[in-house]
Amino acid sequence: MKIINNNKSKSKSKVKVIPLGGLGEIGKNITAFEYEDEIVIIDCGLAFPDEDLYGIDLIIPDVTYLVRNKDKVKGFFITHGHEDHIGGLPYVLKQINAPIYGTKLTLGLIESKLQEHNILNDCTLNMVNAGDIIELGNLKVEFIRTNHSIADSCSIALHTPVGVIVHTGDFKIDFTPIGGETMDMQRYAQLGKRGVLLLMADSTNALHEGYTMSEKTVGEALENLFTKADGRVIVATFASNIHRVQQIANASIKNGRKIAFSGRSMEKISEVAISLGYLFIPKEMIIDLNKIKDYSNERVTIITTGSQGEPMAALTRIASGTHRSIQIENGDMVIISASPIPGNQKAVSSVINDLTQKGANVIYGAIEDIHVSGHACQQELRLIHALLKPKFFIPVHGEYKHLINHAKIAEDMGMDKSNIFILETGDVFELARKKAQVAGKVQSGRVLIDGMGVGDVGNIVLSDRKKLAEDGIITVVIVIDRENKTIISGPNIVTRGFVYVRDSEELIRDIRRIVVKSVERCLDNNVTEWSEIKNSIRREVDNFVYTKMKRRPMVLPIITEI
Amino acid sequence: MKIINNNKSKSKSKVKVIPLGGLGEIGKNITAFEYEDEIVIIDCGLAFPDEDLYGIDLIIPDVTYLVRNKDKVKGFFITHGHEDHIGGLPYVLKQINAPIYGTKLTLGLIESKLQEHNILNDCTLNMVNAGDIIELGNLKVEFIRTNHSIADSCSIALHTPVGVIVHTGDFKIDFTPIGGETMDMQRYAQLGKRGVLLLMADSTNALHEGYTMSEKTVGEALENLFTKADGRVIVATFASNIHRVQQIANASIKNGRKIAFSGRSMEKISEVAISLGYLFIPKEMIIDLNKIKDYSNERVTIITTGSQGEPMAALTRIASGTHRSIQIENGDMVIISASPIPGNQKAVSSVINDLTQKGANVIYGAIEDIHVSGHACQQELRLIHALLKPKFFIPVHGEYKHLINHAKIAEDMGMDKSNIFILETGDVFELARKKAQVAGKVQSGRVLIDGMGVGDVGNIVLSDRKKLAEDGIITVVIVIDRENKTIISGPNIVTRGFVYVRDSEELIRDIRRIVVKSVERCLDNNVTEWSEIKNSIRREVDNFVYTKMKRRPMVLPIITEI
Repeated sequence: MKIINNNKSKSKSKVKVIPLGGLGEIGKNITAFEYEDEIVIIDCGLAFPDEDLYGIDLIIPDVTYLVRNKDKVKGFFITHGHEDHIGGLPYVLKQINAPIYGTKLTLGLIESKLQEHNILNDCTLNMVNAGDIIELGNLKVEFIRTNHSIADSCSIALHTPVGVIVHTGDFKIDFTPIGGETMDMQRYAQLGKRGVLLLMADSTNALHEGYTMSEKTVGEALENLFTKADGRVIVATFASNIHRVQQIANASIKNGRKIAFSGRSMEKISEVAISLGYLFIPKEMIIDLNKIKDYSNERVTIITTGSQGEPMAALTRIASGTHRSIQIENGDMVIISASPIPGNQKAVSSVINDLTQKGANVIYGAIEDIHVSGHACQQELRLIHALLKPKFFIPVHGEYKHLINHAKIAEDMGMDKSNIFILETGDVFELARKKAQVAGKVQSGRVLIDGMGVGDVGNIVLSDRKKLAEDGIITVVIVIDRENKTIISGPNIVTRGFVYVRDSEELIRDIRRIVVKSVERCLDNNVTEWSEIKNSIRREVDNFVYTKMKRRPMVLPIITEI
Repeated sequence: MKIINNNKSKSKSKVKVIPLGGLGEIGKNITAFEYEDEIVIIDCGLAFPDEDLYGIDLIIPDVTYLVRNKDKVKGFFITHGHEDHIGGLPYVLKQINAPIYGTKLTLGLIESKLQEHNILNDCTLNMVNAGDIIELGNLKVEFIRTNHSIADSCSIALHTPVGVIVHTGDFKIDFTPIGGETMDMQRYAQLGKRGVLLLMADSTNALHEGYTMSEKTVGEALENLFTKADGRVIVATFASNIHRVQQIANASIKNGRKIAFSGRSMEKISEVAISLGYLFIPKEMIIDLNKIKDYSNERVTIITTGSQGEPMAALTRIASGTHRSIQIENGDMVIISASPIPGNQKAVSSVINDLTQKGANVIYGAIEDIHVSGHACQQELRLIHALLKPKFFIPVHGEYKHLINHAKIAEDMGMDKSNIFILETGDVFELARKKAQVAGKVQSGRVLIDGMGVGDVGNIVLSDRKKLAEDGIITVVIVIDRENKTIISGPNIVTRGFVYVRDSEELIRDIRRIVVKSVERCLDNNVTEWSEIKNSIRREVDNFVYTKMKRRPMVLPIITEI
């Protein structure tokens, strides 16, 4: 009887699924699952800013809704250790101090992040293994092993009173993975057989037919290259791609090369991975970067950051000749074992050009297959849908074009269109046993992190930066004796970032003349509001400069009254 | 006897080949060929700025060397009408007024450009046909038909006393071109048979195996799509790709659709192309963009600019919902018939997402093959080398990675490595009958165009803009009575583009306090140089703000003395 009662009471409440990031974008993944007085959060990532966000360092999700309901939050359940899944934690944990659950490597990476932010001691980290089920109140969270471009990745099955929700996390299906097992498809099948109410699945590669190649194929390509190399081999890849690093290390050891790590995150993550037993390199094969000169070139491999051409990363500094301990020599082979993320193509291209020009033999995507994606392509997505046969489906982790294509894949496999939901960040998706719908909206969006400031860069600041970036600034300083209605000193014209013209002195003189006229006219007309005088200066200088130069620098009048 | 004499005297002088742009970059192509007192210039293009060139509109080559030798310049010989080959002309012609030679369409596009700059009447435009040879003094310039993504493109064979130089211009080999003939390979073979001293060839696609597909294949793909469309069809492509526009028009007419042009350059170039007979569309099939509402959706095609996601282009405005006369409706098919140029991927992606979200069915590269390149791939490059069998070779039109790969292709075909030269912009390449070498360097580089200013944006202005873009500005205004060593008014602190912090009032108060202290200390110590007082303010405010905010806004002290 108790069970029946229980079931009855359960069926009255609905599960709310609230994505607060990761939809319509690739980045800052975070989704809340709410049932009565329990909230479970899957992932808590950051996003990197586009160029139009001048001066912004990174973006985290707006978690106002969670802060308001923080007493309900039972924990953060993290699928894997990539920045777009863990990077928001240090900021969000300061507002919502709930325990974090994740596998060993994932927690290792989170730990070093919390340490940097000096909040590790205030946080609770709970280690789980793939296969574990964490029982909260009504909700149970199950971790299921997957494959991805970082070790120890998991899907999550959320067992709720209305049914099972499967969130794939980022995944691919690798039948020959490095240092691990294939995704637990048997558990997927079992869940599918019993009935899955909702699937939320990775859409990153939903535009790509076929399936993603195994990580192992990269190892084979790398070994081929290593046997051909007779100078140093410098390989750039993502520091977090530990399986890749393992394969680079294997190829090195096979060819009698010592291994040096270059770049802060490469040093840090490889250290964490070795200490936790995810990366196996005999101690005697690792050398300090400062010691590479002690070995002949054909005995050295350098594994480095900078595969995306990031301005301050090690490979970029090697390419520009500004690296402290690595200068390119003739015979060096540089392997860029990563694809450029959209937006980084130009930067990567310029690194390749610089390295080639300095004499390196640069191997990259256009030349050899030395990278595979960490995300499932269409055929793998179909397999997941076939195993789980969910009643409802929400494509996640993608821009709109990815989501809509993933939805089409599900539809083509026979799913009812009305059971597929393309959500937006902030949507409240209400899920019952037989019905699902978007039933509201909560506050959501992006919080911009700029230096030490969190979330205080408003649109005005950003649009000011844009204007300053494009046309610079003209500052007009003037000292006025308001009583006597006279200009005591100035106008003093100072420009920065404004195009210098051959006859700039004349231009400045003209601006000064225009300001004087403008102010005198105001004073003569008994304009008493400084803001009006400033507007008049701004308008007239702006007009004049635009007519003369076809430019609109920011005009900043500053009036001092004596 | 005369001929022999002639030959003798000729063999004494060398031909100088001086690239002033287009090497180590894709953009601002221009090369000078100098023989005794004659200079021939091939192409005169512009480049578009990277994002780090804040506020710069475009870049033209530094032609100081040509200006110094302008009496020698016999003419500009233009291979085709793309911006990176003609865009520098309006600026360079103001300094070097030599005649321009080109085919009809190329001149048509140059003409409208010179008209915009109000210098058409001062310029001499000489129309040529493919096959024409222009005899100057010792130099003869021959135009040879090629295929490219713009009609009326040519290679140039420069006949000099030391031998023949072939400059391919931008080309591909299209065996089924639209509205024209296949590249004149018979002439290439003939020149090769007689002996080519130097080849300079397009390297854009030197990293791509195989050959570039025919423009005709795009027409077939477009026709397939048009038959499936039941709403409007909106096709974005490069305005200058007249063959593409022709094929879009053909598919439209076949399906009973009227054609409207959208976007300034699309309207302008299609008008030029129709009037010169390069684009054939029955007059009654063209409608004004404002009239599209008069026709049912399945009777309308819109051909538009914006295939690169350019912020102000028509397609971008359609996507963001800010276009004056086109709003996306359900059932609209949008075809992006172009590949994103490196650097534009993110912008294009966001246009695709916006259009999809508004209900359009967006067809783009990742989904269908609706674009082909205008540049030759490796197999075509090999063919050209085989036909011409040049003694010397300079790969051109490419970044360093393209040039080096093109060099490898030539080497693999058996060319002597010492006869292949990878040049840099500004190199003076001296060419004799049997010998060639880099023999010097002339001034070269980039001239930045910013609004009406030409070449007057220096590094200081750019680095100021960068600083302003990232961290904004803090202006400190202070009025000092130097005689009495007192601050009369201020400091007045005004910030722009500077992060607002929650406690910004306190921060500003702190800055004010620091400035007062700093100035008073200077005055007390009898510092009399304004610049020293300013430095002191700058240093202390900078330190304080960095400690507090981890930011370094520009600090601009302005002191007024009374």
